[in-house]
Amino acid sequence: MKRTVGVIGGEGKMGSWLRRFFASAGCPTLSADRHTSISPHDLVERCDVLILSVPIKAAVHLAREIGPLLRPDQLLTDVCSLKRDIVSTMQGSTKAQVVGMHPLFGPATASIQGQNVILCPIRPSDGFAWLRQILEAQGAVVTVTDPETHDRTMAVVQALTHWMTITLAAVLNRQLDIDSIERFATPVFRLQLGLIGRLLHQDPELYDMLIAHNPEGDRMIETFLVEGEKLRRAFVHRQEGTTVLTQMQADVGQRFQAEMERLEAILDRGLAPLQPSSDTASRVREDS
Amino acid sequence: MKRTVGVIGGEGKMGSWLRRFFASAGCPTLSADRHTSISPHDLVERCDVLILSVPIKAAVHLAREIGPLLRPDQLLTDVCSLKRDIVSTMQGSTKAQVVGMHPLFGPATASIQGQNVILCPIRPSDGFAWLRQILEAQGAVVTVTDPETHDRTMAVVQALTHWMTITLAAVLNRQLDIDSIERFATPVFRLQLGLIGRLLHQDPELYDMLIAHNPEGDRMIETFLVEGEKLRRAFVHRQEGTTVLTQMQADVGQRFQAEMERLEAILDRGLAPLQPSSDTASRVREDS
Repeated sequence: MKRTVGVIGGEGKMGSWLRRFFASAGCPTLSADRHTSISPHDLVERCDVLILSVPIKAAVHLAREIGPLLRPDQLLTDVCSLKRDIVSTMQGSTKAQVVGMHPLFGPATASIQGQNVILCPIRPSDGFAWLRQILEAQGAVVTVTDPETHDRTMAVVQALTHWMTITLAAVLNRQLDIDSIERFATPVFRLQLGLIGRLLHQDPELYDMLIAHNPEGDRMIETFLVEGEKLRRAFVHRQEGTTVLTQMQADVGQRFQAEMERLEAILDRGLAPLQPSSDTASRVREDS
Repeated sequence: MKRTVGVIGGEGKMGSWLRRFFASAGCPTLSADRHTSISPHDLVERCDVLILSVPIKAAVHLAREIGPLLRPDQLLTDVCSLKRDIVSTMQGSTKAQVVGMHPLFGPATASIQGQNVILCPIRPSDGFAWLRQILEAQGAVVTVTDPETHDRTMAVVQALTHWMTITLAAVLNRQLDIDSIERFATPVFRLQLGLIGRLLHQDPELYDMLIAHNPEGDRMIETFLVEGEKLRRAFVHRQEGTTVLTQMQADVGQRFQAEMERLEAILDRGLAPLQPSSDTASRVREDS
């Protein structure tokens, strides 16, 4: 069980998180990064498990470089937000066991308990069984799927919703007095403003990648524009809003009950005046 | 200061909230509703302040009915989510003092501390000064504006964002396996699922009114569709996503810092597994 884990990009935010995670599970960990004396090639020599924790282009490049050096008993995995390219590159470049992994949370997460992790294994292997067991033992909700299903789902979960947030920011910026908008905000709209602020605080290249490089991102955005235009006509022009909503209640029904209850609890807490702890404020600055 | 407050619709959720609020400020309150022995006309006789806490069509009807009966020393106000029609109707039907009011929060709110309230007074009056003072004394953030500015802003804050949520639900329902979507959710997407669940749990007529009856709702939705199509082309077709985001960072900049910090704190708490209290669960059911 105590496999040695080598993290390429192990000094970055997600890389540090991964090292802490596997260390807490009792695994020795090693890190290779730009300023470490240890190189990716050293990790190939010394580790049972190799994790690529770098941006997707670098991950694809590294998979091609170190893949051929790995043995069949080693495990090669990654943490990229899109899986199709990296998984097929890993598969094509190595005889090692291959699992694509997407932890659906950021490096500020204290505990993996209750967090979603997607795994895309190439085939059943002891490396895959080990990784899944480590994640589930610490409380992660592991879902196994193929890279295409993953990327199509992320086209909504990430590409579409981030595009929505950016577009809302553009409308606000054009149409309203943006300096006074907070005084007109409902608790729900405060969440929207928070999403805008958060997105614009982070690396533009990351969000560009999530939107533009998702193979199905464009199709999902187009679908939103088409459905949105239909709904606009139904509500505003045909006065069918109540009918549309009643039909949608029937279709989508009582789903998302847990998420709704979570949101209601959040809105209740959010209603209190904002008193950010100094911890939160400093963490936000550090992340951005 | 201790004016008697009469709430028409005072047995409803928001009406009950208003009675508790004014009672806690030391004002005697009276309620007229469908099943009370007291009628709106009794309130006109016995109250210094009349609040219309009923859906907008009923509020317009009531303003026409009781407006002519009020004296110039009385105050007529309402809590509708759109202000243009109700304020002009109140203005046209009475010699009493008139203030349109929009509390930007729901009846589940325990304290008004830090909450936004919009006031649209017809002209300065002692009734307006009294109302503002009562709200601010208990910690509300009061903004004074005209009905047109209010409705235009709500076209984004309410009409546009609710339309976005409904459209996202439609895309999810068409494009993905909606039963497994929670296992693919990031903390941010969990908020989106919560917004969908919450909207579909509430009265379709309320949301239809907020979207379709806002005089600028259609224009804001159309603006979103146009800006969204531009952004789609910039990100996906012209590969200019990073440039667009960098420019938007420059335009919108460090705004919404407080909202972002609030959201970060929420996401941290949201990362814990959901354990809704029985209080929350029961309140949600009651509201829906």
